[in-house]
Amino acid sequence: MYNNIKIGLLGGDLRQVALAKKLASMGFETAVWGLGVGGSDMLGEAVKCVDFRSAISSSSAVILPLPISADGLRVNCPLAKDSEELRLTQLVGLLEKNTIVLAGRLTDETRAVFDSGGIKIIDYYESEELQIKNAVPTAEGALAIAMNELPVTIRKSKCAVLGYGRIGKVLAEMLNNMGADVTVAARKSTDRVWAETVGCNSEDFKEFFKSDEKFNVIFNTVPSCIIGKEELSKIPLDTLIIDLAASPGGIDVKAVRESGHKVIWALSLPGKCSPFTAGEIIGDTIVDILRREGVVS
Amino acid sequence: MYNNIKIGLLGGDLRQVALAKKLASMGFETAVWGLGVGGSDMLGEAVKCVDFRSAISSSSAVILPLPISADGLRVNCPLAKDSEELRLTQLVGLLEKNTIVLAGRLTDETRAVFDSGGIKIIDYYESEELQIKNAVPTAEGALAIAMNELPVTIRKSKCAVLGYGRIGKVLAEMLNNMGADVTVAARKSTDRVWAETVGCNSEDFKEFFKSDEKFNVIFNTVPSCIIGKEELSKIPLDTLIIDLAASPGGIDVKAVRESGHKVIWALSLPGKCSPFTAGEIIGDTIVDILRREGVVS
Amino acid sequence: MYNNIKIGLLGGDLRQVALAKKLASMGFETAVWGLGVGGSDMLGEAVKCVDFRSAISSSSAVILPLPISADGLRVNCPLAKDSEELRLTQLVGLLEKNTIVLAGRLTDETRAVFDSGGIKIIDYYESEELQIKNAVPTAEGALAIAMNELPVTIRKSKCAVLGYGRIGKVLAEMLNNMGADVTVAARKSTDRVWAETVGCNSEDFKEFFKSDEKFNVIFNTVPSCIIGKEELSKIPLDTLIIDLAASPGGIDVKAVRESGHKVIWALSLPGKCSPFTAGEIIGDTIVDILRREGVVS
Amino acid sequence: MYNNIKIGLLGGDLRQVALAKKLASMGFETAVWGLGVGGSDMLGEAVKCVDFRSAISSSSAVILPLPISADGLRVNCPLAKDSEELRLTQLVGLLEKNTIVLAGRLTDETRAVFDSGGIKIIDYYESEELQIKNAVPTAEGALAIAMNELPVTIRKSKCAVLGYGRIGKVLAEMLNNMGADVTVAARKSTDRVWAETVGCNSEDFKEFFKSDEKFNVIFNTVPSCIIGKEELSKIPLDTLIIDLAASPGGIDVKAVRESGHKVIWALSLPGKCSPFTAGEIIGDTIVDILRREGVVS
Repeated sequence: MYNNIKIGLLGGDLRQVALAKKLASMGFETAVWGLGVGGSDMLGEAVKCVDFRSAISSSSAVILPLPISADGLRVNCPLAKDSEELRLTQLVGLLEKNTIVLAGRLTDETRAVFDSGGIKIIDYYESEELQIKNAVPTAEGALAIAMNELPVTIRKSKCAVLGYGRIGKVLAEMLNNMGADVTVAARKSTDRVWAETVGCNSEDFKEFFKSDEKFNVIFNTVPSCIIGKEELSKIPLDTLIIDLAASPGGIDVKAVRESGHKVIWALSLPGKCSPFTAGEIIGDTIVDILRREGVVS
Repeated sequence: MYNNIKIGLLGGDLRQVALAKKLASMGFETAVWGLGVGGSDMLGEAVKCVDFRSAISSSSAVILPLPISADGLRVNCPLAKDSEELRLTQLVGLLEKNTIVLAGRLTDETRAVFDSGGIKIIDYYESEELQIKNAVPTAEGALAIAMNELPVTIRKSKCAVLGYGRIGKVLAEMLNNMGADVTVAARKSTDRVWAETVGCNSEDFKEFFKSDEKFNVIFNTVPSCIIGKEELSKIPLDTLIIDLAASPGGIDVKAVRESGHKVIWALSLPGKCSPFTAGEIIGDTIVDILRREGVVS
Repeated sequence: MYNNIKIGLLGGDLRQVALAKKLASMGFETAVWGLGVGGSDMLGEAVKCVDFRSAISSSSAVILPLPISADGLRVNCPLAKDSEELRLTQLVGLLEKNTIVLAGRLTDETRAVFDSGGIKIIDYYESEELQIKNAVPTAEGALAIAMNELPVTIRKSKCAVLGYGRIGKVLAEMLNNMGADVTVAARKSTDRVWAETVGCNSEDFKEFFKSDEKFNVIFNTVPSCIIGKEELSKIPLDTLIIDLAASPGGIDVKAVRESGHKVIWALSLPGKCSPFTAGEIIGDTIVDILRREGVVS
Repeated sequence: MYNNIKIGLLGGDLRQVALAKKLASMGFETAVWGLGVGGSDMLGEAVKCVDFRSAISSSSAVILPLPISADGLRVNCPLAKDSEELRLTQLVGLLEKNTIVLAGRLTDETRAVFDSGGIKIIDYYESEELQIKNAVPTAEGALAIAMNELPVTIRKSKCAVLGYGRIGKVLAEMLNNMGADVTVAARKSTDRVWAETVGCNSEDFKEFFKSDEKFNVIFNTVPSCIIGKEELSKIPLDTLIIDLAASPGGIDVKAVRESGHKVIWALSLPGKCSPFTAGEIIGDTIVDILRREGVVS
């Protein structure tokens, strides 16, 4: 179905490995570079290239990792041999003008490199669909952390989920399905009603931090500092706190150092806990983008 | 309600800590020895004794750990200081004849020590109710292992559960609630019908090992060797195998060493993964036994 | 807590009965008229008035039914004796200017009657929270209809849910929990991703009506005509169609008459199937409004 | 797969119709008589015979309804024309000695008719697998009754399930999945522990009838009279009671007539509420029996 369309993948981690395998299995001619993994079976039908030039040449689309770069200069290649490296400027010079580049977590700087080279680049991480799908591996990763850390079972434990966005929704329901007693704290009353509808308790943040309820674990998904010195003073020291919110996160680091609470900052869980699933999700998104851009029909 | 009844706890791990706290919270006068934990809050109202004699004296019941002994001679005291040790024979000599002793996983030898001393001893680990309740922390522990090991999410993953006893039932349903695609392999057709009724697929073992289905993870709960050289030859090398069956377990160790499959032997999960919950479960069982024995009404 | 605050309820059905009982149980001095029900126990602490004047007098708030009126002239009193009737204009004349009136499903006409009288009136049916809460009794009512009509169990049946708004979300998940094979048809791709996330299949409407899948039941929640002659021609005659969308509904009535499909138009299910729950939901909403309006603190 | 094997179906209701369709779809040459339904599509590939002789002749197996007979004399033919009737003795006379007869709910009398004729007859209703599978349509039927009768939603309602056999297990979990607050009353402590494990509350019968808890609905599955005058005196009059237990059932009819409780006696729900599913279940069972008997391989 997607035969005769070549896609080049450069760099990345296990997510890109799963992504390459998926694209190849769909029929794309898939060439990878900078994924120095042994098991060819892990790459399926995808072909490994020793030189990035061969991966790029005559590719309709070039896919860069998530994040695109660790240092803002070179393509992020955690699995590559030290000898293998590719600078973004160098890459731009090699690309044909009509090639579409897809990458994750672009910064203004990295984006500028491609713009100045007249290369169209799209950030697949900005896809709302991808963000929703990522909520599942994120929630599972958070659940696994709680299971590993807590001396009690999730079943019958008291869990709090702060925030009811994508991750909050999926996590609260997952905990609920595991038999936990789940309380969702959310600002919007409609979010609280939805949480109640799926079987959770709900409170606004003021009620939540005022109440004397004791939780085994508190999961934060709110990306603004809502747990400071005063809030921590209300939380028992043996309550585990897991912060899932993107940096700067929702918990005052300095206050925690003083209070002595156990806090686990858990970021990028999809890539860490379920790289293959995360890669498949990126694959779905990339195919949608390629279709939207007319690269595939 | 249980005031004026003294119970002595000797040795044990975090399960005994939670158990002591629970019994004390119920009103029992609870005296512990050999649980050298710092936080008195962990023990709640229970009282720590420096000498086991004071923990024992005038106790209506004495509770020993699970397992009662690691070497068959001394009470199992993993949390105690090296100086602290108590030989079973010594303990028997100290007990008043009307004291009831409750312990876990008695062997003929350890039981004999108490019989010969004319001390009534009951194995709380033999309680069917305890075994059923333990299926939850066991299943959660198994789920956590799978989440930690698999590169994919449990949701949408293909999971096989071999055996449909207590653990198989709870684990299969838990995986199902997590959104996995669960196949139960069981010998009895009625077990298979029950598995289908709760939303799983089912096969007998012959069908299971003949089929070419590829699973992300296989959980074994059958306590007899059902996965040998031939069965392993049908299982892909990237399928994770988790053996939950009591020793000798269900997988041929020698065959695995040759085949190179990744097998995780996961035993005593309740105590390892959810010690507090496991301690509470032991507490429920002990109160039932004390009631049955007329120690409490 | 709400003592010394009088509320008058006029007319309505069993929802108003449950509402009156709830408000009275919360401490409001609750006076009802036009709910000619026998069992005083059904009304709990609420007091029945023979004359609407006594129900109204010195009430901080007056609550009218959902819908407020059947004929646009008189308060909707399905449970009242024929002799009992109250015209909206008459009511407005009796109300003190500072009284707040709460009613459901106001029309421009009915609203005008109160505006012209200088009486503040609020439509509690417009509350987003109420609409979300009503999704549960609506979904349960729809499930009950399907159970009553289908010759197969919901478990393992193939169910389609058209639209993924409030009712679609709750209904799809409820069917899923019952073990049905659920397909959600939705326009927005993010809605489809959410439906997949909770374990349903998803398609856009074009795919849905093109596919040859055979469903036991199709639930429509889309309030615009999406099932016309052509769509019906693709649906087997033994597929049950349940339309939950507000009038004009989503199915072309004329086309159905020709095609001979079995269609059930199911409207106002909360009031019909779960009047007490619906009344409680209205009660929650009314208390929120009274708090917002400063009638209660 | 099952071609060249003829099966004759005589009499029965919609379950037999679905059964005939299923057997025909599996490849059996399926001949039916006494199922005077119009829609040939309902019978699929099965062939209708005007004379029972042609349905019987050279059939390897003859399938009779559930129950086999209403009057103990003639085959149960609720869908047949009045002219069509078949006496059991007459049938026995027509059967070849090597024909296997399968029927449901045999009595000693009906069984004797075939024994005396030297015809092997097997009661498929005695299959444990069938009984387990039937628990699902039974539980759904009971749920539908409760939904139709209760003025509140199942979600958040308080439901009691008496007995924890096949039906109790499936019904309790179904109600639990619907969001109800479920209490299981059971005699065996292990059953109570299992009920707690799947998220229900549990009590033994003494506790249950002593407690002052108010339930919206009580489902009885215990086939011996456990709700008598005294028990009814503890149950509020607005609590709905649904008796699912086979005659004589679990509720003292005379006591109910005096107490005025609303009791619904709900028997044979699979056949009444989900005849097609019930027919498929019978089909599975019959194929198992035919395999066991060596009729099919």
